[in-house]
Amino acid sequence: MRVLGVDPGLTRCGVGVVDSLPGRRAQLAGVGVIRSDADLSVDLRLLRIAEGLDEWIDAHVPDVVAVERVFAQHNVASVTGTAQVAGIAMLAAARRGIPVALHTPSEVKAAVTGSGRADKAQVTKMISRILRLDDPPRPADAADALALAVCHLWRPAGALQGGERHELTPAQRAWAAAETAARRKG
Amino acid sequence: MRVLGVDPGLTRCGVGVVDSLPGRRAQLAGVGVIRSDADLSVDLRLLRIAEGLDEWIDAHVPDVVAVERVFAQHNVASVTGTAQVAGIAMLAAARRGIPVALHTPSEVKAAVTGSGRADKAQVTKMISRILRLDDPPRPADAADALALAVCHLWRPAGALQGGERHELTPAQRAWAAAETAARRKG
Repeated sequence: MRVLGVDPGLTRCGVGVVDSLPGRRAQLAGVGVIRSDADLSVDLRLLRIAEGLDEWIDAHVPDVVAVERVFAQHNVASVTGTAQVAGIAMLAAARRGIPVALHTPSEVKAAVTGSGRADKAQVTKMISRILRLDDPPRPADAADALALAVCHLWRPAGALQGGERHELTPAQRAWAAAETAARRKG
Repeated sequence: MRVLGVDPGLTRCGVGVVDSLPGRRAQLAGVGVIRSDADLSVDLRLLRIAEGLDEWIDAHVPDVVAVERVFAQHNVASVTGTAQVAGIAMLAAARRGIPVALHTPSEVKAAVTGSGRADKAQVTKMISRILRLDDPPRPADAADALALAVCHLWRPAGALQGGERHELTPAQRAWAAAETAARRKG
């Protein structure tokens, strides 16, 4: 299974692609940051981020897109832009029939470090170890995107998306699987 | 000039299309509400709203899309979904080269009623009078979308978008105008 993790942000949107390997191991398939220029109007910044996300999804063909769940009570000043980018990432996946998973920051931290209160340095250190990286991913947004993807791969069975379970019908799931297969061939 | 007003919301997204007429008059070109089913996952709800917005933009070919500016401090419980839909509306316009304007709720109320503190009933009453409608637009989201469009048409010259001025280069503006003309012919 291949997961694209998205750490949403208007200035820097982290993206990380991770493949699952047998024996609860994981392998890096790609990592980066999509940036938008703060001098542009919001609509053109969102367009830039959307085009970048489209390129990442089409280049890496993930089975799932895992997005950080945005809470309005955190970082009130930047939450609007963060929520907008999260929405655009979900839409990009939904347009392609790719399931979306949402994970909270504390779920992600707990999955990769064992503690829901880990700081950014701990997350970066552990994700580097899990993925056997020679150099830690920079900036922190890129490391967070990889951690989101690993969190999704290692989620407890049955606890998939909490209150946001992806409500696809069996027909929709079959269609999404066929779409993924067709994109991989194409 | 034709303006599409968008009152963003995940459950009900109001859309209203208004044409300017000579002598500070305005005419209704279309009004409605795009709904998404609360039983669906957020990504599929955003997809439904995005598809609806695409249909409205492609059917009515606005010169400008006016979106309500979302503030994180208001309605914390629903602000994430509202911000996501606002972002998707801005992206839909930006993908087509259509300029986006953001207006605050108080700007909209002041433009159509003379008071930035008007209630929903006053906005609905005044927008019905301005557009010479036999019946008031329902629900309130639809009336708010029309009020947004009228607010944009009647904005003071030079005060276009406050801090969010649309930073198009002359070449981008020429391209957007040519695109609009091409869509109208097509």
